[in-house]
Amino acid sequence: MGSLPTDNLESMSICSQNPLDPDEFRRQGHMIIDFLADYYKNVESYPVRSQVEPGYLSKRLPETAPNHSETILQDVQNDIIPGITHWQSPNYFAYFPSSGSVAGFLGEMLSTGFNVVGFNWMSSPAATELESIVMNWLGQMLNLPKSFLFSSDDNAGSSGGGVLQGTTCEAILCTLTASRDKMLNKIGRENINKLVVYASDQTHCALQKAAQIAGINPKNFRAIATSKATDFGLSPQALLSTILADIESGLVPLFLCATVGTTSSTAVDPIGPLCEVAKQFGIWVHVDAAYAGSACICPEFRHFIDGVEEADSFSLNAHKWFFTTLDCCCLWVKDSNALVKALSTSPEYLKNKATDSKQVIDYKDWQIALSRRFRSMKLWLVLRSYGVANLRSFLRSHVKMAKHFDGLIAMDKRFEIVVPRTFAMVCFRLKPAAIFNGKLGENGVDYNCIEEKTNEINSKLLESVNASGSIYMTHAVVGGVYMIRFAVGATLTEERHVSMAWKVIQEHTDAILGTVDDSVVA
Amino acid sequence: MGSLPTDNLESMSICSQNPLDPDEFRRQGHMIIDFLADYYKNVESYPVRSQVEPGYLSKRLPETAPNHSETILQDVQNDIIPGITHWQSPNYFAYFPSSGSVAGFLGEMLSTGFNVVGFNWMSSPAATELESIVMNWLGQMLNLPKSFLFSSDDNAGSSGGGVLQGTTCEAILCTLTASRDKMLNKIGRENINKLVVYASDQTHCALQKAAQIAGINPKNFRAIATSKATDFGLSPQALLSTILADIESGLVPLFLCATVGTTSSTAVDPIGPLCEVAKQFGIWVHVDAAYAGSACICPEFRHFIDGVEEADSFSLNAHKWFFTTLDCCCLWVKDSNALVKALSTSPEYLKNKATDSKQVIDYKDWQIALSRRFRSMKLWLVLRSYGVANLRSFLRSHVKMAKHFDGLIAMDKRFEIVVPRTFAMVCFRLKPAAIFNGKLGENGVDYNCIEEKTNEINSKLLESVNASGSIYMTHAVVGGVYMIRFAVGATLTEERHVSMAWKVIQEHTDAILGTVDDSVVA
Repeated sequence: MGSLPTDNLESMSICSQNPLDPDEFRRQGHMIIDFLADYYKNVESYPVRSQVEPGYLSKRLPETAPNHSETILQDVQNDIIPGITHWQSPNYFAYFPSSGSVAGFLGEMLSTGFNVVGFNWMSSPAATELESIVMNWLGQMLNLPKSFLFSSDDNAGSSGGGVLQGTTCEAILCTLTASRDKMLNKIGRENINKLVVYASDQTHCALQKAAQIAGINPKNFRAIATSKATDFGLSPQALLSTILADIESGLVPLFLCATVGTTSSTAVDPIGPLCEVAKQFGIWVHVDAAYAGSACICPEFRHFIDGVEEADSFSLNAHKWFFTTLDCCCLWVKDSNALVKALSTSPEYLKNKATDSKQVIDYKDWQIALSRRFRSMKLWLVLRSYGVANLRSFLRSHVKMAKHFDGLIAMDKRFEIVVPRTFAMVCFRLKPAAIFNGKLGENGVDYNCIEEKTNEINSKLLESVNASGSIYMTHAVVGGVYMIRFAVGATLTEERHVSMAWKVIQEHTDAILGTVDDSVVA
Repeated sequence: MGSLPTDNLESMSICSQNPLDPDEFRRQGHMIIDFLADYYKNVESYPVRSQVEPGYLSKRLPETAPNHSETILQDVQNDIIPGITHWQSPNYFAYFPSSGSVAGFLGEMLSTGFNVVGFNWMSSPAATELESIVMNWLGQMLNLPKSFLFSSDDNAGSSGGGVLQGTTCEAILCTLTASRDKMLNKIGRENINKLVVYASDQTHCALQKAAQIAGINPKNFRAIATSKATDFGLSPQALLSTILADIESGLVPLFLCATVGTTSSTAVDPIGPLCEVAKQFGIWVHVDAAYAGSACICPEFRHFIDGVEEADSFSLNAHKWFFTTLDCCCLWVKDSNALVKALSTSPEYLKNKATDSKQVIDYKDWQIALSRRFRSMKLWLVLRSYGVANLRSFLRSHVKMAKHFDGLIAMDKRFEIVVPRTFAMVCFRLKPAAIFNGKLGENGVDYNCIEEKTNEINSKLLESVNASGSIYMTHAVVGGVYMIRFAVGATLTEERHVSMAWKVIQEHTDAILGTVDDSVVA
């Protein structure tokens, strides 16, 4: 099967026959596979961050849908690809990775092809059962306590288990709603404005959003300050004193979200000690390991989730760093009954014998939406196509490349690591000394001004690199320090891409520092 | 490209190389296309409703993930397909359709292949811009008022526009949250327990679930009774008196969900008159046309959403009856600012020039989750690959087949239509007279008993048909009457399948009625 010549793109023709005609499906399906295989072959040649201006596409597309059928693949190439930021490029180091794979893609194809709507067991038993099975598999790979897994022993009385959600936002919203209703059933609904949600100031904004949606009073959202002293992890003492102050004010502590691998700097909250504090007050603890959870299938990283046995729920995004393509958030809970109580609905039109028998799981009651895709297919394909050993080795190779990048930075004295690397992301910046070039000791240089200017120059450097299209990185600010995030994890990235990226950064640094003259000093 | 011989399934091999290796992608991608094309060719031969028993899959799969890579396609055939209820079968008439198509599938492949995470404009401009464009296209096809569309005139001051969500549940939760926060900002958060949500008793359970999640007091959820007199549509008078009673009790009317095409019977709430009532009280009106909205691109069906110009938001599920595969819920709102105020979060790590310029949309602020797939790709492919004219003709062909089924029922005096058909779903049942066979006039036959027994026999008939695997239908109960729902819309369904389905129903009826003896009469 060769590549797809560009002038063949127009041959993607039109079904005037049945829109799901199997022969047409086969013909066009093969065409798209070739198109995407070529895309992966060439993705390195595209500017990583899209270089279009706002409104570019409306200038290219008509204002209304066509009345008759049109061919389209050439337009994907000409009009869509320039507007794509290439998350699959080996030169993509921005945000967190969105790690695709052949197995993940094939799983999504099968799931889309079958196109079942697995809201309950009955609507497609395989969709439900495969999900429970692979969630147990992955839970075991992570060495999660049995209380988070489905038990084959019906008499165990456990109601733990796993479910696939779209995103962490959804996982948090579901667990927050479950904890909220459990608490309100105890203290009365009239007290909803007393409920308090806790997290560190490094916690992903998904929590804030979930709290907003679940009707938590915005005044009762505690983003507890962190600092460099704890590497931006949440301090159990700070949590405790915040809780005590709230109780003193007549409020009701409800929910703690602890993070393993924060977005800004992959900081790790100390799960065990935090649970110890939270449990004294009956707080539901959710552990958000959206990015870093995947790494915990490697024994050397597992300690980062030590203490999870005391938490109530745990989630990671397999679409970030576990090869399953967007979207695939894995959520485990101990008390699935709490989820079901908060989220179930049982209309007559969904009644069926299997549900009545209580022998099955109806995942619609474990999530926000009723409808759900057959997401476990892709996770199953990833787990089986690669196996635990290969998956560990893929993850380790990303960590190794991040270490390599660490080493490159160490050799250039103009740069510094802002927070120690934990997983496969490096947070670095141009040092004030490199910018101020020996003038730091002089009179009249004030500290705030130095930090402000350093941030500004680092921001300039990042924008300069990204605008070039060679590589793409993003930034964060911790403790007032603007830093550049270099996240390794795009599936196609190899060590040579990391080395090349460093060269690009150095070149842009030379250019930027060349323009920084004495005027930078206030 | 020929079919895939079964014994080749095992040749799907393992990547020990990069998990996104383009050549391996090409090789395995072609294999899956052939697998799925064969599936569509053969889907008619599978029992439509899966015949497995709860727990079937755990008996077939190992308890832990493999350590090394394994081939998998043969297992999909042997272990997964028996557990699938075949929503793509031409003999599938259950629930509502989940209408796949070649174009929808290809769109999903492209979106999965690019695997971008389009939370904001910057993260992949094409994903945002294509979405806005196709939502305007589809909005125009539906003849939605301009206030629901994006305006190219920046000075128009309009904040209307469309967004793709996963499901109706999400669309309702977002609009409900927006309306809630708008109201609470006016009357104070302490009044959250006074907010009231309105709908008919026929409204999809998605609303109840959304209200639960958004923290609406369950006591303030009004499922207003409907009856046969209004064909199970919500009566504006009943709405008005319910609202007045609530105000009298010191409650605050917040949100009305009106439905066009209810799940039980495709009933249509009278949008215009309902809006007229709701607007007097400042209630946010959402129109849920999840199933039937698609039909409104045909001029002869458009009148069902007349009055939508007075509503605040409108949604339909393109994955139900618009060929885009799960999941693709199209939501239009007039006041996107209300959504953004309720759902936005702006962490430092997502700050970027484009957002700061306010020239772009960041769809993360229009939905629950931060991450989002490139869903507009499949809607674009469907709109362009088929064009408006073909799409109308596909939808009309389903309606025509439902009419054909209507006609078949009319010719068999044992059956009756329970509620008049409006779109492509027929609600029918075996008549009491057919079951009680002339004994209805006799003494001692009481009405309640007759209805109960009639419901029971219809339920038996449905289970008998479904258990055979020949076709799959589901049921609903309206006004105490158990009826069988026959929903035409699976893409592969042709008139011959409908005729065959009717024969199957008649055969099972003969068998069931043969076993009903005098004992049925109490």
